Amino acid sequence: MADHSGAFTEAQVIMRLCEIFASSDPRIEVGIGDDAAVVVGAKRQVMTTDMAVEGVHFRTDWSTGFEIGRKVTAANSADILAMGATPDYLLVAIGLTGKEEMSWIEDLANGIRHEADLAGLHVIGGDISKSEKVVISMTAVGHCDIAITRGGAKPGDGIYLSSLTGWSAAGLALLISNSTVATNAAEKAVREFKSPTIDYGFDATGASSLCDISDALEIQARQIADSSKVALKFDLAKIEASAEFVELKSLSQELEIDIWKLIFAGGEDHVLLATGSDLPGILAGEVIAGSGIENLPAGVENSGWEHFN
Amino acid sequence: MADHSGAFTEAQVIMRLCEIFASSDPRIEVGIGDDAAVVVGAKRQVMTTDMAVEGVHFRTDWSTGFEIGRKVTAANSADILAMGATPDYLLVAIGLTGKEEMSWIEDLANGIRHEADLAGLHVIGGDISKSEKVVISMTAVGHCDIAITRGGAKPGDGIYLSSLTGWSAAGLALLISNSTVATNAAEKAVREFKSPTIDYGFDATGASSLCDISDALEIQARQIADSSKVALKFDLAKIEASAEFVELKSLSQELEIDIWKLIFAGGEDHVLLATGSDLPGILAGEVIAGSGIENLPAGVENSGWEHFN
Repeated sequence: MADHSGAFTEAQVIMRLCEIFASSDPRIEVGIGDDAAVVVGAKRQVMTTDMAVEGVHFRTDWSTGFEIGRKVTAANSADILAMGATPDYLLVAIGLTGKEEMSWIEDLANGIRHEADLAGLHVIGGDISKSEKVVISMTAVGHCDIAITRGGAKPGDGIYLSSLTGWSAAGLALLISNSTVATNAAEKAVREFKSPTIDYGFDATGASSLCDISDALEIQARQIADSSKVALKFDLAKIEASAEFVELKSLSQELEIDIWKLIFAGGEDHVLLATGSDLPGILAGEVIAGSGIENLPAGVENSGWEHFN
Repeated sequence: MADHSGAFTEAQVIMRLCEIFASSDPRIEVGIGDDAAVVVGAKRQVMTTDMAVEGVHFRTDWSTGFEIGRKVTAANSADILAMGATPDYLLVAIGLTGKEEMSWIEDLANGIRHEADLAGLHVIGGDISKSEKVVISMTAVGHCDIAITRGGAKPGDGIYLSSLTGWSAAGLALLISNSTVATNAAEKAVREFKSPTIDYGFDATGASSLCDISDALEIQARQIADSSKVALKFDLAKIEASAEFVELKSLSQELEIDIWKLIFAGGEDHVLLATGSDLPGILAGEVIAGSGIENLPAGVENSGWEHFN
């Protein structure tokens, strides 16, 4: 992001964003431009909000505007999927410093649009404000027939991951260490940190509980255990048998980081964690009577991150 | 806001906010605490988002947390009312510096809750993040049978204000000048700047167009004129005849600011501007064929503020 003042007005930015976010979805009766959007609703809706701040959740020297736009949108999309719902609408409030180039703002908006298209989200409203650091706050709205909360896991259920966790944390480690590792696995890790691949195709129909892993597998598994009043017993051998494990294992060795720490304590992959029978993804253990997590690898407990303290 | 680090965790803040925002509304199937809220929707919905940044939209040395919470909530509520809709749900994302006292955060949340209760909004979700300045981003959701946009004003309609604009701008002028004026009008102006009184009782049923005045009467009237392809012809004598005019007039004289500048170029009152027949509020002119605004007082044009440039 170049540090010279953009020669454009708020109105010009809004006009450009309206073009990028244009949608002909017939459910949008009034889109961006009035006091509020008017849309066709649904009987049962799912709503979530997520704020990302420059220097806390993203760095403009590490990620392009496009990648940042994708990442924040992905975090919001994943929360809709994590309720077993279908994404519908997205509202985007952005704080800009006023020093951004129009091209960077467009890149950010194109990243939001790209990920929103993958998710099936339509951008129906927004707000632009001035702020000292770039702030992106989104609200996503979806619909479902039956919401899948964290509270329905039952003993006998399997534990499923829509894909392997730990890639984003590995990518962050590579960026922090200025690593020169240039394997396919390293490229994938950095890519996943910059804009995680959301498992939009994961079919959670019939899952007894569901959430997305934003903080860490250990934290989110504990939330399911607590909400469902059961224990989640992991089977590390089953996780080791997954195709992605081998890839991540060699990268973790190059990084000299315990792979289990990446998998259980890394965050921001937004992998879906589900319980139930015959679900797709990686079977990673089983739900049993009790509380908390069993078979957590040594050294992982409580090592997840906390954004604010 | 005291400048010493709060000895509490994010989890404790979230727990306290959950208590403050607790709602037993039966439409809320899953509230704060899962990946997303689950609510009963509606056939036609109205959605809006608004971001407020410390130092740009509010100052913590001028306003209490309670006042700031009210003000940001009011801005979002007003956008729902401005579509002729009924407010339902509110999502609140907050960026905190980490230096706030718990009591200030509670005060902010209580202010949000207070205004949300006035509006009929239920806080169903949120996010807390770390940021260098306090940032508050909200999304409000409402429902309506028929949305009233800015685009339906017709020649022959009256122009109505739900109450007089200019109070918030007068309050800002008092604060900037460190004024010692202590009249009732001055107190009202400062109060309106800190947390504007939203005209929740204004019945816009049957209005042909509607919006709320967030930027300035002149700007919003022009938006209605442009969207409706008509002209808005103001009748200054009618505005002068309103009960509030006398009060604001004496204050404007003490401030040595042209009262018409306060009324037409001041912002953030969130007064509702409507067109139609036999509406409540102040009859302020009529809609005629043409474009733009007629009878704008001298010196007012294009003097409204722009938050970002």
